[in-house]
Amino acid sequence: MSKPSIPQGTRDFSPAEVRRRQYIFNTLRTIFELYGAQPLETPSMENLVTLTGKYGEEGDRLIFKILNNGLHEKKDADKEKLNNEWNTLLSKPYSTPVVTERALRYDLTIPFARYVVMHQNDIAFPFRRYQMQPVWRADRPQKGRYREFWQCDVDMVGSTSLINEAELLSIYQAAFQKLKVPVTIKINSRKLLAALAELCGMPDKMMDITIAMDKLDKIGWVGVANELRERGISDDGIWQIERVINVKGTNDEKLVAFSDIMQHSASGMEGINELSKTLAYYGSLNASAPLMEAGDVDNDHNIVVDISLARGLNYYTGVIVEVVCSSDAVKMGSIGGGGRYDDLTGLFGLKGVSGVGVSFGIDRIYDVMEELDVFPKQLAEATKAMLVNFGGENETYALQILQQLRSANIAAEIYPDAAKFDKQMKYANRRGIAYVLLPGDEERQKNMVSVKNFETGEQKMISVDEAIATLKP
Amino acid sequence: MSKPSIPQGTRDFSPAEVRRRQYIFNTLRTIFELYGAQPLETPSMENLVTLTGKYGEEGDRLIFKILNNGLHEKKDADKEKLNNEWNTLLSKPYSTPVVTERALRYDLTIPFARYVVMHQNDIAFPFRRYQMQPVWRADRPQKGRYREFWQCDVDMVGSTSLINEAELLSIYQAAFQKLKVPVTIKINSRKLLAALAELCGMPDKMMDITIAMDKLDKIGWVGVANELRERGISDDGIWQIERVINVKGTNDEKLVAFSDIMQHSASGMEGINELSKTLAYYGSLNASAPLMEAGDVDNDHNIVVDISLARGLNYYTGVIVEVVCSSDAVKMGSIGGGGRYDDLTGLFGLKGVSGVGVSFGIDRIYDVMEELDVFPKQLAEATKAMLVNFGGENETYALQILQQLRSANIAAEIYPDAAKFDKQMKYANRRGIAYVLLPGDEERQKNMVSVKNFETGEQKMISVDEAIATLKP
Repeated sequence: MSKPSIPQGTRDFSPAEVRRRQYIFNTLRTIFELYGAQPLETPSMENLVTLTGKYGEEGDRLIFKILNNGLHEKKDADKEKLNNEWNTLLSKPYSTPVVTERALRYDLTIPFARYVVMHQNDIAFPFRRYQMQPVWRADRPQKGRYREFWQCDVDMVGSTSLINEAELLSIYQAAFQKLKVPVTIKINSRKLLAALAELCGMPDKMMDITIAMDKLDKIGWVGVANELRERGISDDGIWQIERVINVKGTNDEKLVAFSDIMQHSASGMEGINELSKTLAYYGSLNASAPLMEAGDVDNDHNIVVDISLARGLNYYTGVIVEVVCSSDAVKMGSIGGGGRYDDLTGLFGLKGVSGVGVSFGIDRIYDVMEELDVFPKQLAEATKAMLVNFGGENETYALQILQQLRSANIAAEIYPDAAKFDKQMKYANRRGIAYVLLPGDEERQKNMVSVKNFETGEQKMISVDEAIATLKP
Repeated sequence: MSKPSIPQGTRDFSPAEVRRRQYIFNTLRTIFELYGAQPLETPSMENLVTLTGKYGEEGDRLIFKILNNGLHEKKDADKEKLNNEWNTLLSKPYSTPVVTERALRYDLTIPFARYVVMHQNDIAFPFRRYQMQPVWRADRPQKGRYREFWQCDVDMVGSTSLINEAELLSIYQAAFQKLKVPVTIKINSRKLLAALAELCGMPDKMMDITIAMDKLDKIGWVGVANELRERGISDDGIWQIERVINVKGTNDEKLVAFSDIMQHSASGMEGINELSKTLAYYGSLNASAPLMEAGDVDNDHNIVVDISLARGLNYYTGVIVEVVCSSDAVKMGSIGGGGRYDDLTGLFGLKGVSGVGVSFGIDRIYDVMEELDVFPKQLAEATKAMLVNFGGENETYALQILQQLRSANIAAEIYPDAAKFDKQMKYANRRGIAYVLLPGDEERQKNMVSVKNFETGEQKMISVDEAIATLKP
């Protein structure tokens, strides 16, 4: 028999990993609900036609398609049709609904749009929803890139108010404070990028300009200027961009400087106004300092206007944001991002629903938290106590104690067999169990129990009530 | 554009449904952890070879297979091979790994066995794991039967101790008490069913006997006797079965009567002994009454020895259990079940790992809880408070109040636009929000806020601190 394995790019999550992942999900869930967002879950499978053509050609190629069942049960006449479909499949990667009518969810955005359109009459707009589910992509697996991975999105649709943008910034702030991850939240507007291209006299070159500017951190200004030249930007254009990039200072100072430079661009002034209003709303929301717990990080002043921020330009139409971990100890790209879009549901025939959304990169956040060592210690400690099984009457006595511990909310187990003492202790040790309880003859006769603290090695015989008091969380 | 839809047999879960489902998952999770069970999650996709041949021919037919990606990118030489695979696929539903190397998880048991074998050196045995994840089956959808549905399993492997059986009974008891679902837990042993066939002098007819006996509730004894005769059981055999079925009384009384009838069957006496020990362990565990909360159901005395219980005979080897809702108000089959198996991991080359496991039928439990109306009321109440948006300075004032509510753990939102008052109130009403806060000019100048209770219609102007005290959970 060959050794069993799992598909490339997928993962088993061990008990310790599940607990830490659940901690992230639960923390986010609590914050989302506090902000009035509603949970939504959509099926893992969507009809293939719902997904194709929504993610570009590259995306279509990466969708996992599910083979229709019962193909072998078709009549011979139908099989000819299937053979044609099969040949299409071998020459072209999509539009073969007869052989594969269903496909695995590729992201959470398209299923959300599909849901909104299908349930438009039941939904009270503005609709704030969050969704935390796996998605699947047939990408080449590599470090940090999986074929099954989790997305976590919050979107607010049906309102153009910039309060929504401020709320989402505030959710980011609250979430990373609670997760103890120091972050910088970069904010920009697609309208400023458009204005920048206007300023260069090349409004159709926005994408080129953005792609080049995005590399500023890596290749410096000289490198960016060279790339801009290669991409056909004029010298005057490059000078204009240099002026904008050189703007330093607080967010307010930057916005004032941008208004000076972009005063003749309607799009630019709109973008500046939107950023300014978003930041003002955020300021009103967080006028009083947030409640901090020990170890919480204060991300309150880490919102930074950054005109080089690009992020999925084809999709977004207004304010865009991106979150990076600000600790020097961690090398990691974006751990979250999002922005305003004008027409999410138009794809499915419902026009004019504007929205803004952000996502959390769960797998990357997990890695960052591991590196920073900020997962709560109690997550590692699964079961708090194990009762040693001495068999016979002592076993019966142990079972009685066991259930009393659980009634007091103490996670506890008994070694199910009256195995050798060493074997039982070795098990408890491997499991990382903090306390071992020894209900032997003497303990049973005295109606007590010996409690051994595994870490200190200390052992004492006490009453069951005292044991409960010692172990109680 | 055609109206968007979702695949047959799959479901979108609305916010209210997600909350109720999460309530079930969290309740079970808390109890499992209290009993020392460890969470495990496996990938949605397994290698097809891991799954085929494990669920019988019918099962193989129902596995959802994922088409390999990039087929259109293959060289012409390889395409001939693919065409052969395709033809196999059209004549036979499985063993076509070149075209579909991956498939969707069909249950949680085989992936668990695969995990145990792959990680046998890292796991501390005995290993108690729980797993709550969706599975997929290409079954014909009908009421209560879905193509994507959730399984929830707890298994204890690597120990033959009957304490494990008692622990699982106790988990059932605690779970359904907490979920406020009154249940009967039926318990039997495969060994008793084997003994019954011996008693009839037809040890190879165990399956026939069981299938007939299983219909007792529906067709009565005369019907069962007829079916037994049709299935070739002798008159003496039928008389023996009648004797066993006629045994009434407490569990202890039944077991005494069975020992009398089956005294010459080694298998029978072993089964009786195992049931008796399991019930004794359960009794020791639950010697003191469980802590009850208001509305909890006391399922403590609802474990019933039932010799007609069958349950997946091919798979199980010892004690078997099944849970049914005992409320007359609910018509629903089994909502949980499981048993002891001797060789789960043998399929993947690791022999001699005995285990016992039970599962919870999440979708059915959900339906039962809906029917009994036992979901906590606060699950329906999502956001507690909405701030009406009066625009301008009042909007700024509202944002400040909003964040103070959230700091006090009150789920709150602001209507993001300064829309007409009626529109805002209508939204709050549709959302089922309990309190509407009105921060108008007068309130802002007095540094207070008007709080309207949506249910009673009562409205009063109070300080923000008083409002927080009123709304606090």
